[in-house]
Amino acid sequence: MSKLRFRISISLDGYSAGPRQSTKDPLGIGGERLHEWVVALAAWRSSHGLAGGAVNESTAVLEDELAGIGATIMGRNMFGGHPGPWNPAKPWNGWWGDNPPFHHPVFVVTHHPRPPLELEGGTTFTFVTEGIVAALDLARRSAEGRDVALAGGADIARQYLSAGLVDEMSLHLVPTLLAEGERLFDGIRDLGDLRLAGTVTAPDVTHLKFTRP
Amino acid sequence: MSKLRFRISISLDGYSAGPRQSTKDPLGIGGERLHEWVVALAAWRSSHGLAGGAVNESTAVLEDELAGIGATIMGRNMFGGHPGPWNPAKPWNGWWGDNPPFHHPVFVVTHHPRPPLELEGGTTFTFVTEGIVAALDLARRSAEGRDVALAGGADIARQYLSAGLVDEMSLHLVPTLLAEGERLFDGIRDLGDLRLAGTVTAPDVTHLKFTRP
Repeated sequence: MSKLRFRISISLDGYSAGPRQSTKDPLGIGGERLHEWVVALAAWRSSHGLAGGAVNESTAVLEDELAGIGATIMGRNMFGGHPGPWNPAKPWNGWWGDNPPFHHPVFVVTHHPRPPLELEGGTTFTFVTEGIVAALDLARRSAEGRDVALAGGADIARQYLSAGLVDEMSLHLVPTLLAEGERLFDGIRDLGDLRLAGTVTAPDVTHLKFTRP
Repeated sequence: MSKLRFRISISLDGYSAGPRQSTKDPLGIGGERLHEWVVALAAWRSSHGLAGGAVNESTAVLEDELAGIGATIMGRNMFGGHPGPWNPAKPWNGWWGDNPPFHHPVFVVTHHPRPPLELEGGTTFTFVTEGIVAALDLARRSAEGRDVALAGGADIARQYLSAGLVDEMSLHLVPTLLAEGERLFDGIRDLGDLRLAGTVTAPDVTHLKFTRP
């Protein structure tokens, strides 16, 4: 069966986003520091249609993570926009622009129903109101044998982790402190049967990969 | 000048001790899981007068940390015992036994004065009530040109980190969750001028070393 693969950047003090997330600061205040390592990479830039960038120990890690993914799951906050029901007059279309970098089906877990949003480049956002198991079922079917990426944010990740549904977890540990914001593991008692399987050291980040034994 | 070198084990969710620390559970409930990697090492066992044990990637890390240390600083909780003033009738003599593994002067930062405690093997506990700077001055003088180890716990470590007095920090990141207890970095806004200088991957722990540039 296709795997559910979760990847996220966290700080040394366990935060995956800074405080006061908003449409202006989607990663929270200071949260962009967790992503500097990836946006600097040529591999990330090319997947977003940009030239240039760095090649280092993180390159293969990112390429592995992007490979073999047939669908993505994310929470409502990561798709973006205001809380509560969608505004039918001016529906928020996400942070991701007209040609999002996914190029495959994306399932947004939300309490608020909405018709699918089909954008350029093969990305369709489907809004799932039946919960995380339904979203995973839909994503697996759409992935046609490939794996499913769990993109975050922290809240939806905690739901999948608590339910024992995550098959692989990549933590990108950034050697900095955020001091406040959203703690990835808050309320999670243990990692279930996920075990550290490998570590890659890059200049500005340490990659920790967890798999089932 | 001799360096202040801080080393501590932390969980993925940022805890350096479990909850409900007591004389029965000095590391808090579950906190011993953070130290399994080190107590299994031959290098740790021999420094505690024990035979056997493992040799792996952590061995050189531990040997480096133990080398060149002329004095140790710790907080009252790490020395151990009850909170509040010492009991003059039955003073707590620490977790460390009659022949503690330090074999050099140890300075215990506490609010409660007490005469020095001289034990076998060259370890003398001196109780410092004048605060962290005074303890560091005393430790540096006692170390006679060698470095000073900051042994913890989290509370005293936060004081030294916040004051910018830590010259090297070794984090031993254990790939597990504690979910509750004492968070090492709570209330620390940033790492000052400490920067990640190197990473060592071992089977059950990832060692992150921070130094000043």
